[in-house]
Amino acid sequence: MSPQLEILALAGLPEVGPGDRLGELLAAAAREADAEPGDTDVVVVSQKIVSKAEDRTRALAAVKPGERAVALAAELDKDPRLVELVLAESRRIVRAAAGVLIVETRGGWICANAGIDASNVSGEDIVALLPEDADASARRIRAELATASGSRPAVVVADSFGRPWRLGQVDVAIGCAGLAALDDWRGRADLHGRKLAATAVAVADQLAAAADLVRDKASAVPAALIRGAGRWRTDADGPGAAAALQRASREDLFR
Amino acid sequence: MSPQLEILALAGLPEVGPGDRLGELLAAAAREADAEPGDTDVVVVSQKIVSKAEDRTRALAAVKPGERAVALAAELDKDPRLVELVLAESRRIVRAAAGVLIVETRGGWICANAGIDASNVSGEDIVALLPEDADASARRIRAELATASGSRPAVVVADSFGRPWRLGQVDVAIGCAGLAALDDWRGRADLHGRKLAATAVAVADQLAAAADLVRDKASAVPAALIRGAGRWRTDADGPGAAAALQRASREDLFR
Repeated sequence: MSPQLEILALAGLPEVGPGDRLGELLAAAAREADAEPGDTDVVVVSQKIVSKAEDRTRALAAVKPGERAVALAAELDKDPRLVELVLAESRRIVRAAAGVLIVETRGGWICANAGIDASNVSGEDIVALLPEDADASARRIRAELATASGSRPAVVVADSFGRPWRLGQVDVAIGCAGLAALDDWRGRADLHGRKLAATAVAVADQLAAAADLVRDKASAVPAALIRGAGRWRTDADGPGAAAALQRASREDLFR
Repeated sequence: MSPQLEILALAGLPEVGPGDRLGELLAAAAREADAEPGDTDVVVVSQKIVSKAEDRTRALAAVKPGERAVALAAELDKDPRLVELVLAESRRIVRAAAGVLIVETRGGWICANAGIDASNVSGEDIVALLPEDADASARRIRAELATASGSRPAVVVADSFGRPWRLGQVDVAIGCAGLAALDDWRGRADLHGRKLAATAVAVADQLAAAADLVRDKASAVPAALIRGAGRWRTDADGPGAAAALQRASREDLFR
C-alpha cells in the first residue's frame, strides 16, 4: 500500500534577505535534496522567510512608540515599540489583557501581536511583520518555482497561531496559490446517503499543520514538501486564496 | 531523501457497533492493507467510530426535550431533541445564536453542539455523542492494538471542530495515548540562540489535521496511520493526554 501523503522537510536554504527570490531558493534546495516538487505537490513555506524576502523585518530600536502604544504597553506589560508596530499592522484590537494583545491584522487575520515576532530573526531586537498580502506572496513564489523547476506545485504560506480554548500553537495558512484553501462538502452526501449539513474543510490550514510536523522550531526548517495533495489542486489562483478562510466579522461570535 | 512523515488511510473496517474492540479491528485492517503500525507510528482514529464502539449513539426519537431545551431550540431554530442532548453533555453554554450552539462539554472541549452530529451514522435520526473520556478511549485502543499486533503505536482520537475567526473545520485531538500531545519549546533556544518565548506546539492537533487529509468525508475512511512520528512518543500514557490541550478557563479570553 503506497502512502497517500508524504511530507518532506526542505532544509538547506541560505539565510534569506530582502529581494531574494524564494521560489528559486526553494527549487534549488529541493533539487539538492533530490525532492523536486511535482505539479500535484504542495510547497509549504514558513511566513518568517517570506517576510525576510519581502523586507518586512523591523529594528525595534528604530521605532518611536506613539502615545496610544505607550499607554497600551504599560497596561499590558509589553514593549511599547512592539505595541506600536502591532497597532500599525492592525485594523482593530480583538482582546487586550496582561501580556496578550490579539488583533485583526490589516490583512484580515486574527492573531496575537499581529503575527509579529522575533524568533529565528537574526540581530538584536529585530522582528518580522507578516507579509502585506501573503496570498500574493504565495502566487509569486509559485511563479518563481515554476520558472526555476518547470513544475507548478501549489504553495502555502504558513504561520503558527495560538487558538482560543486550546493550548499550543498550530500552523495555519495565511497565503495560498494553486490550491482550494477551503474544500466545501456541504450538499454532498455521506456514506449513508445523508446530506452533509455543515462540513467545509480548511484544507490549506491542515496542510500547514501537517508540514509543521517535519519542521523544528530550533533548527528552523523553513519549508516542507507535501506529496500526494493533487486532489485540491486548482489553477484558478486568482486573488484571495487563503483569504477564503477568513470568517466575515458579522458571522463571527468571538470578536 | 526519505519522507519524514507518511500518512496512509486505513480503510476496510467493518461497520462498527457497540462493544467492538476497535484496536483489534484496526490491527486487522492494517494487516489487510499491508500497513501494520510500528512502535513509532501514530494511529489516528475518527471519533465517530469510537463513539459507535462505546455505544454513544442515540435515537432522537427516544429523546424527550425538557423545558430549557424547548425554549433554547425555539430561540436558535434547532431540533429540541438535539438541544436536549447537547445540554446533557455540557457544562455550560459558551455562545448561543441563530443556528449555533457552542458549549463546553463535560469532558472540557469547546465545540458546536457538544460534538454531537449525525453524519456517517446509519439510521434515521441517529446521532453520535462524543466519547465520555476520549483519552481513556485512546488508551484502551492502544492496548488492544498492542495485544492484536504486538506493536504499540500511539493513538489519537480525532474530531472535526470549527474555529472562531476562520472558516472550515479542522480535525483536532480529543483523545491521545502514547504521545506528548503538547510539545513545549518554551525556554529552548532558536536558530540564533535567542530563547523561544511562547512556543508550545499542539502536536496531537497537528497529527489529527494531517490524518484528515487522507480521509474523505463521503467514504468515511475512519482511521489513518502516520509513520515517522516517533519523536513525540512517550510511554507515560497516564491520565489526561489530550486534556493537556485544554486551556484553563481563567486563562481564556474567549469564553
